[in-house]
Amino acid sequence: MKQIIIAVDAMGGDNAPGAVVRGCLSALRAHDDLAIRLFGRAEAVRPLLEEAGSEKSRIELIDAPDEITMHDEPMLAVRRKTESSMVKALMDVREKRADAVVSAGSTGALFLGGMAYVRVVRGIDRPALAPVLPGLNKPFLLIDSGANADCQPRYLLQFGLMGSVYMNRVLGVKTPDVGLVNIGAEDAKGNRLVKEAYHLMSAQTVYHFAGNCEARDVQFGNFDVVVTDGFTGNVILKYAEGLTSVLFKQMKLAAKSSVRAKLGGLLLKPALSSLREKMNADEYGGAPLIGLEGTVVKAHGSSNDFAFGKAVEQARLMVLRDVTGRIREGLAEISAGEASRV
Amino acid sequence: MKQIIIAVDAMGGDNAPGAVVRGCLSALRAHDDLAIRLFGRAEAVRPLLEEAGSEKSRIELIDAPDEITMHDEPMLAVRRKTESSMVKALMDVREKRADAVVSAGSTGALFLGGMAYVRVVRGIDRPALAPVLPGLNKPFLLIDSGANADCQPRYLLQFGLMGSVYMNRVLGVKTPDVGLVNIGAEDAKGNRLVKEAYHLMSAQTVYHFAGNCEARDVQFGNFDVVVTDGFTGNVILKYAEGLTSVLFKQMKLAAKSSVRAKLGGLLLKPALSSLREKMNADEYGGAPLIGLEGTVVKAHGSSNDFAFGKAVEQARLMVLRDVTGRIREGLAEISAGEASRV
Repeated sequence: MKQIIIAVDAMGGDNAPGAVVRGCLSALRAHDDLAIRLFGRAEAVRPLLEEAGSEKSRIELIDAPDEITMHDEPMLAVRRKTESSMVKALMDVREKRADAVVSAGSTGALFLGGMAYVRVVRGIDRPALAPVLPGLNKPFLLIDSGANADCQPRYLLQFGLMGSVYMNRVLGVKTPDVGLVNIGAEDAKGNRLVKEAYHLMSAQTVYHFAGNCEARDVQFGNFDVVVTDGFTGNVILKYAEGLTSVLFKQMKLAAKSSVRAKLGGLLLKPALSSLREKMNADEYGGAPLIGLEGTVVKAHGSSNDFAFGKAVEQARLMVLRDVTGRIREGLAEISAGEASRV
Repeated sequence: MKQIIIAVDAMGGDNAPGAVVRGCLSALRAHDDLAIRLFGRAEAVRPLLEEAGSEKSRIELIDAPDEITMHDEPMLAVRRKTESSMVKALMDVREKRADAVVSAGSTGALFLGGMAYVRVVRGIDRPALAPVLPGLNKPFLLIDSGANADCQPRYLLQFGLMGSVYMNRVLGVKTPDVGLVNIGAEDAKGNRLVKEAYHLMSAQTVYHFAGNCEARDVQFGNFDVVVTDGFTGNVILKYAEGLTSVLFKQMKLAAKSSVRAKLGGLLLKPALSSLREKMNADEYGGAPLIGLEGTVVKAHGSSNDFAFGKAVEQARLMVLRDVTGRIREGLAEISAGEASRV
C-alpha cells in the first residue's frame, strides 16, 4: 500500500491549531494509508498531539517559528515569511517530501504561494479555486470561485477541463456536465469574455460542455461543473452565503411573530436544522486549488475539526486518483485537437 | 394640477393585455393627475376597458396592429416593427405626447428601443436597468442589472449618480449610500474594471460613494444603491431568484419530513407566506431604465394587476420628481468637478 503524505499548515484558520490537529487525527484514524507532516509552532502544537492514540506514529511535527496572518499582504508574506508554517508546507510538496498541502490560512497567500512554490502545470494559464457546493439535487463544482479576478477566454476553457477531471476522479461523476455561467441560455448572450469562451469550450471534445448556465440554474443541479471568471464566481459564492443567512434569520423572526408561529417554529426546528446542515458545504471538504503540479487544498477559514478532517481526506483522494496527472493528459488532448483542426 | 401622461404597451408580458389594463385602471383610480395612452390591438383591448368606471375618461386606446414578442430578435424588432405597441408607445414619448412609457414586454427590445427612440441623456454613456430589491432592513437599487454586459469604469461612475438620484427622488432616501460590488472590502481588490471605477467614484463629490460592497452584504441593507456591471448584476439578480426558490422548496420538503414537522409547517405557514411576500420585489414597481431623456419603466414579464399598477405609479413618480432633470444636473456637476481638478 502506497502511503500518501500530506503537509498540513497547523497555524492557518480561525480555530488553529486545535481544530487542525483534531481534524488531522480523525483523518488518520479513517485512513491507514495516510501520513501527515504537520507544520507549526512546536510549543503550541505539541500539547495537542497528546490526545493522539496509535495514529501518532503517522503524524510528524515540524517546527515552523513564523506564521502568515490575515493581516499580511499575501505576495510579500509568501516571499518573505519562508519560515512560516504555510510556506514550509508548500516547500515540502515542491521538494517531494509530501504529496499535498492543506491549509485553512489566507486564501491569497496559499494561491500565490502555490503558484510560486508548488508551480503551475505546464500548459495551464491560471490555477483556480474550486469548491464543491450543495445544489438542489446534487453537488456542483464552482470554478473559479475567486482566485482570478480578470480572466481570458482560454482560462475558462481550461477551468472546464480541471473541474471535469475533479468531479470525475474525486466525486465519481461519470461524464460531468460542464456549464458556463451566463446571463441567458442562448449562445449569443453575455459579455465578450463569455462569448469567446463559449466558442472555445464548444470546439473541444475532451470534456462534456453542456452550454450556458443561467445564474438562476446554478443551484438547481443540472450541471456538475459551473465555469466562470473569479470575480463572478466569488460574487456568487459570497452572495449565496449572505442570502442564505438572511433567509434563515428572517425565518427565525417569522417564527417569533405570533404564538402560533412560535409553536410551529419549535416543532419545525429539527427539520430546518437538518436543512441548514444540508446547505453546508463542509461535507465536501475545502476548496481545491486546481492546476498546480501538486495537490493544494484550501480549507475554510472557519473550519472546525470535522471540516478540516474532510479537507485532509479530500487531499488524499485527489492524490490517490491522480487529478493532476489526468489534467495533464486532458490538456495534451485539447492541444492535439486544436492542432488537428488547424 | 399638471397632468402626467403615461404611454402603456398593452401587449407586453405574460398576462397581457388583461393584467396590464386592470393595472392601469387601478393606478388611475389612485391618482387624479394621471392619464394613460394605451397602445395595443384595439379589438383585444377594448372589451377589457368595459370594466372601467369614471376613470375611463383618462384612458385613451390607440390601435397598434403589431406586437413585439419574446421570440423577436430585439434589435431587428425595434427597427422594423414600427406599428408595434411597444415602438408606438416609445414614439409617443419621443414626440412629447406622453411623459413616460411602461412595458412588461421584451427587456432587450425596450432597452434598445428606449435608446433609439427616447434617446440617451447627453453625457450618459449607457442607460441602465435598475430594479429596487428587498434587503434585510431596507430596499436597495441594483444598477446595472443586465442591460450592459460589457462596461467601462466611466459607466459605473454614472450608474452611481443615476441610482443615487432615483433613490433620493423616488424612494425619498436623503443621502443614498452608494456601494460598488467587489470581491473584498479593501479598495485594492477586484478586477480591472472595478479598481478603476473605485477611483472615479471616490473622486466625485456629487453623490455619496460609501465604498466597496462585498456580495455577501448586498442583501444586508447597508447600501441604498449597489453599482455593478450588467453581467454581474444580472448574475446576482437571477442567482437570488434561483436560490430563494430552492430554499423555499427545501423548506416545504423539510416541513413534510415527519409528523412533527408537518404540524410545525402548518402552524408556521402564515408567517412564512408573509416572509415570502416581503422578499417579493413587486411592491417597488418595475425596473426603471435610467439615463434616457424620457421615463421608461420595464415591468416584470410575469406582472399581475398589482405589479403592473405599481410600475405605472412608479413611472408617474419618476416624472413628478424629475429624475431625468436631476441626473442632467448631477452630470454637469461631475463634469465641473473634473474640470476644476484638471
